[in-house]
Amino acid sequence: MQRRHGIAALLSACAVAAVTTAWAAPAPAPDKTAPGMDAKALEAKFDAQIDPAEMGRWLQQLASEPNHVGSAHNKANAEWIAAQLKSWGWDSKIETFDVLYPTPISEALELVAGPGAPFKATLTEAPIPGDLPTYTKDALPAYVAFQGDGDVTAPLVYANYGMPEDYLALERMGVSVKGKIVITRYGGGWRGLKPLLAQMHGAAGALIYSDPKDDGYATDDVYPKGAARPRQGFQRGSVADMPIYPGDPLTPGIGATKDAKRLDRKDAVTILKIPCLPISYGDAQVLLASLDGPVAPANFRGSLPITYHIGGSEAGGKVHLAVKSDWSLKTLYDVIGTLKGSEAPNDWIVRGNHHDGWVMGASDPLSGQVALLAEAKAFGILMKGGWKPKRTIVYTSWDGEEPMLLGSTEWAETHAAELKAKGVVYINSDGNGRGFFRAEGSHAFQHFVNGISADVKDPETGVPVRDRARARLAVTLAEAGNGGGGRDMGGPAAKAAANDPTKDLPIGALGSGSDYSAFLQHLGLPSIDFGYGGEGESGGVYHSLYDDFQHHATFVDPGFAYDALLAKTVGRAVMRLADTDLPVQRYGDFADTVATYLDEVKKLADTRRDEARAQARLLGSNAYNLAADPTKPHANPAPFTPSPPMNFGALESAVAKLKASSAAFDAALAAKGEGLGKAQRAKLNAVIKPLDQTLLRPEGLPGRPWYMNMVYAPGRFTGYGAKTLPGVREAIEERRFEDAQTYVGVTGLALSAYAAELDKATAIVNGG
Amino acid sequence: MQRRHGIAALLSACAVAAVTTAWAAPAPAPDKTAPGMDAKALEAKFDAQIDPAEMGRWLQQLASEPNHVGSAHNKANAEWIAAQLKSWGWDSKIETFDVLYPTPISEALELVAGPGAPFKATLTEAPIPGDLPTYTKDALPAYVAFQGDGDVTAPLVYANYGMPEDYLALERMGVSVKGKIVITRYGGGWRGLKPLLAQMHGAAGALIYSDPKDDGYATDDVYPKGAARPRQGFQRGSVADMPIYPGDPLTPGIGATKDAKRLDRKDAVTILKIPCLPISYGDAQVLLASLDGPVAPANFRGSLPITYHIGGSEAGGKVHLAVKSDWSLKTLYDVIGTLKGSEAPNDWIVRGNHHDGWVMGASDPLSGQVALLAEAKAFGILMKGGWKPKRTIVYTSWDGEEPMLLGSTEWAETHAAELKAKGVVYINSDGNGRGFFRAEGSHAFQHFVNGISADVKDPETGVPVRDRARARLAVTLAEAGNGGGGRDMGGPAAKAAANDPTKDLPIGALGSGSDYSAFLQHLGLPSIDFGYGGEGESGGVYHSLYDDFQHHATFVDPGFAYDALLAKTVGRAVMRLADTDLPVQRYGDFADTVATYLDEVKKLADTRRDEARAQARLLGSNAYNLAADPTKPHANPAPFTPSPPMNFGALESAVAKLKASSAAFDAALAAKGEGLGKAQRAKLNAVIKPLDQTLLRPEGLPGRPWYMNMVYAPGRFTGYGAKTLPGVREAIEERRFEDAQTYVGVTGLALSAYAAELDKATAIVNGG
Repeated sequence: MQRRHGIAALLSACAVAAVTTAWAAPAPAPDKTAPGMDAKALEAKFDAQIDPAEMGRWLQQLASEPNHVGSAHNKANAEWIAAQLKSWGWDSKIETFDVLYPTPISEALELVAGPGAPFKATLTEAPIPGDLPTYTKDALPAYVAFQGDGDVTAPLVYANYGMPEDYLALERMGVSVKGKIVITRYGGGWRGLKPLLAQMHGAAGALIYSDPKDDGYATDDVYPKGAARPRQGFQRGSVADMPIYPGDPLTPGIGATKDAKRLDRKDAVTILKIPCLPISYGDAQVLLASLDGPVAPANFRGSLPITYHIGGSEAGGKVHLAVKSDWSLKTLYDVIGTLKGSEAPNDWIVRGNHHDGWVMGASDPLSGQVALLAEAKAFGILMKGGWKPKRTIVYTSWDGEEPMLLGSTEWAETHAAELKAKGVVYINSDGNGRGFFRAEGSHAFQHFVNGISADVKDPETGVPVRDRARARLAVTLAEAGNGGGGRDMGGPAAKAAANDPTKDLPIGALGSGSDYSAFLQHLGLPSIDFGYGGEGESGGVYHSLYDDFQHHATFVDPGFAYDALLAKTVGRAVMRLADTDLPVQRYGDFADTVATYLDEVKKLADTRRDEARAQARLLGSNAYNLAADPTKPHANPAPFTPSPPMNFGALESAVAKLKASSAAFDAALAAKGEGLGKAQRAKLNAVIKPLDQTLLRPEGLPGRPWYMNMVYAPGRFTGYGAKTLPGVREAIEERRFEDAQTYVGVTGLALSAYAAELDKATAIVNGG
Repeated sequence: MQRRHGIAALLSACAVAAVTTAWAAPAPAPDKTAPGMDAKALEAKFDAQIDPAEMGRWLQQLASEPNHVGSAHNKANAEWIAAQLKSWGWDSKIETFDVLYPTPISEALELVAGPGAPFKATLTEAPIPGDLPTYTKDALPAYVAFQGDGDVTAPLVYANYGMPEDYLALERMGVSVKGKIVITRYGGGWRGLKPLLAQMHGAAGALIYSDPKDDGYATDDVYPKGAARPRQGFQRGSVADMPIYPGDPLTPGIGATKDAKRLDRKDAVTILKIPCLPISYGDAQVLLASLDGPVAPANFRGSLPITYHIGGSEAGGKVHLAVKSDWSLKTLYDVIGTLKGSEAPNDWIVRGNHHDGWVMGASDPLSGQVALLAEAKAFGILMKGGWKPKRTIVYTSWDGEEPMLLGSTEWAETHAAELKAKGVVYINSDGNGRGFFRAEGSHAFQHFVNGISADVKDPETGVPVRDRARARLAVTLAEAGNGGGGRDMGGPAAKAAANDPTKDLPIGALGSGSDYSAFLQHLGLPSIDFGYGGEGESGGVYHSLYDDFQHHATFVDPGFAYDALLAKTVGRAVMRLADTDLPVQRYGDFADTVATYLDEVKKLADTRRDEARAQARLLGSNAYNLAADPTKPHANPAPFTPSPPMNFGALESAVAKLKASSAAFDAALAAKGEGLGKAQRAKLNAVIKPLDQTLLRPEGLPGRPWYMNMVYAPGRFTGYGAKTLPGVREAIEERRFEDAQTYVGVTGLALSAYAAELDKATAIVNGG
């Protein structure tokens, strides 16, 4: 279900300088692969197995019918995937879970008063002339999973993207959403926050529509002429409160196995309490045009041919909203395939992509799924040719990602102990498209990722994908500098690397939005997410009926060249990780990145202090009132909590220690790694493998203990977006200064523990 | 015709600190006014004469029929204004000029090929149900003055705002406009630049439309429900090449009197060579929807419910455009009223506002015109009560401002010698509306302007208008700091003053767009422009039929409270300047402001150097090419001229001298001004009165010698927007580095001459 935006997620690889970790340079390293076969030749053989045409056929078949959780085709797809893996020589099985997954029984949305009333919203997507014959019989109607059933009639209020800053703007306009139905547009933050924030502000119901400005006709011609969202298209999705915990709402922290102890539904805090529906801009235009009240401020305005008003009165746009769901448990079908390691069978390289979609799911997720299948088939052929991975490779095809990372989370929770003992890394992908290489992940793998992107070639230009990513970053930074007011794009490391091919391009941090979350943020398993995009875009049909094979093949990845490239990219990463004799991590990159994060949160604390002072001054001088148009409703902002002095000492010393320990380890490994004997390597691996678990703290993040990683988390009020040093950063953002000070200490403990483990590893390398 | 935007034009007044110039503090100063009447009482009596209801009646009458140049009602208005002045005790007359002013004979615009063809554009504005019975019989159709007649048929290309950066974007898309008809939207820069830049890039014709995003339904409900531009409304205006010279194209630099030597029309460089029409968004939508070619980039997109394409092909949107004009000379009617000074009849305080409109012209310009009339009537009443201004007051009601500042420019050129000998200051206003005080002008008057805005009260809130302006600036800066990415808003002086009521708020520099241009930029007469706005806005009906009395009275200034406030504001300025015994100028403000400008141009030179280096690096590494989508047309940017080293020494030393001389004069005047005898004051006045003429240099600006002021000019490629230190700044902007270096010297000479005159004034104050 993931969506990504912009340059922050870009990265690519350095020109290959002198390197010491096993796989960072693609130099011949015959001892790292199957006997008699050097690494380059192995990877070339792997590439030769990737057949875009075959991937296209798989995609067409997998995307031929709706494949949401509980659908017949989704189960059939899982069974087919498991059978394919088996046929290619994998040990494969289907693992099932029984999860809460509500499906719609009935729903209604009507404009009952105001201009344009009465009007009944369509709530379904019709096939489009010129598209494939689409399979609408089993398609879910307009629906968001884990909304709260209800039947309400109330005036409508337009709240822009429905994000925290939009409620501040409404407050300044003197507008309350209490008892009203809030309509927001998609974008600006994660879907699930929109109805949640409406609920927190007292709303009785919520609607989310796709404004043509954000992914409709304003962005491109609409499907089937172009890739953009047609008038009747809407975005399904999950509105579970994922930032509290993902997975089955009834089994937080444990696997949703048959006999798991389950919460009562009413006690499951991740389920919304108010009804919510997603709608098309065709439907939304009628509702929005009926609103009165203040004219919406400039940043609220979309591209519908209307004057956007805020609404909120009984006369101008009153709506009846009713949703009723079937709340029974449904079965998930996770496919798990294994290639047992020849030397270290208890070291697991786990790689996954989900197979469930909202409707046909061609781009999301099946374009990534067929890459995973192509990799799996290629490994099978390499094995027949004599290659055996040293470590165990586990390929996973998740079910139920769309409703809330269900399949991956329940599997990770069920196998937590084994994964903590055996997991080396989790590698993810999801929907894929034409364009630029991107990766996010644990920063100790940044140099490794750069090594991969230096070695795969862009099909459009013939250059390594790192070169295109670097060029794009450089041009974007230069153009932002010219006309974009010098905006910060990706921080100092990105600026330094954009024009210097000897430097690694930085990778982004992982927030949420795909299946790595439980591994990285609950189990402390380092994770990397790979993908291509930025040219062929599926955004306009995201989570709609129109994300079908024809759309993907026409607009997102013609010829499946980038789906094939994803297979070559991830396949390389898996092979290198499975066969390396020494850690590929470079901990200095992690330490440097964390140091940048610390600088950011310290600057943020200063900003919050300045803002509170500035606001107090403006309130004191009556400036808000004098600056407002007296003929329009307006109100002072609620006063900010003043900033107390903060002490970052615990975090500063932990980061200093981390930098020193990382530098020492990297230097030791560079100097002595190749000379280590088998026993020492095993000892080293025993320290490195569980290292990232030191980033977990048992208390978890404030108010959401499931998230235990003190460096990487999804934002509480941004959703998909990553928050780094989240215990500290979010507390400062939200002016919870006591939490912030507490988590300076807690985060410092985690980083110190990490550094201490690194010191142990260094001692081993140095002959300890 | 002026339009202003944003906070940069805001200012207000300081809390009254210890001051020494005569009028900066409103303390009793009995020697400054008529015998027996102190200043405050005089101003209170003046205020009592301002009658908003009467102003409303005048406005309704003046705006009752179309009043463009050459219309019967425009002439009748001039005669009525002259008669009113006479009836109030002024010496008044009408001065005529004979200027080139083309009027439309025929025009046509049709879509001849592409989707939607054939389609004939309406090119007229129909009356709107709910509006006043509008007088459409004599209204000009869609027309822009000084376009070049022609009859062309060619494919249409959409060029966004048609500004230089838009052509760079088209270049990057590999799009040429050569031989095509360019359609641009209003906004982003001055109207006249749009067809001019199209012509410079080889276009055969040009269209300008009003996108609903900029002043239509996206901004507010459309008229008559709200203030915004209705579907059929369009913006007339001038497209003469004003940045070369304003006024009659046939008589640059001299008055267009009956027997003036005139250029041949073909030699008048300010007349466009290609045909051009302004159109409504109703018409534009059909044309834009017919285009094919690349999808327009995000910053090109307006709020029409279409996918914006660039166009340019024979198949997708081909247009026939034909315009034919009557190019005969027409007569202008400037009204000139005089109140002779009792002590210094050869010191002129000149105040003006134009009376011609594009159609009814209620907001633009008649709202300012009725303020001028109210002031004139009040002065008449004060005179009957015994007051006599010490200096001569000249009230001017200009004709032909809309087509290109014709009336003011021809009058200023005709009376150049007398104005250079007698002019003290020129004070301007134009269209006015509800909201916030703003002023721009010569910075030596900044403190004086602050004194005025401290003394007039806002009708909505009851506080001095300076307090509201300061509050707005403070809130805007704080909100920009919070969410606006720390954009620079008005520079360091604005930041310092926003929250410190002891500091003067800075005033903006004057560019062009109203009648001060000839006075300030051609004759060196210091100028100030006053107005209110930001709440009641006329932008949506700007230069359309719908800028009528009902629109102004309903949306722009209900009750005419701010039109009356403008009269009180400008009336005060005129009275204080007419009666002061000592200069009101504070030259330190001018010197400080110029020093800021110098910092800006030095920084700009660095930026241009960095940009050229960055671009060369990107071209060298093939980055533009690698970052582009290979499936879409794209091209490298044209290489920038590399920046040679620049030497700002001449300007640095001139500014240092200016600061020292200004400080010395301000200090001397503060210490000894009040003690000066009558003869010394006359000597001082003789130096101060023509002082700003030292800012003129006979060579003028590069390529536009009419503009001789080395500190203030309208931008060559921004139009209305001011460029300060224009000889240097624009040359650096456009990478004419030789010009830049030359004008460092030329500008330095002007500032040094200014400082030398100030030194003479200081010597006089000190007893010389």
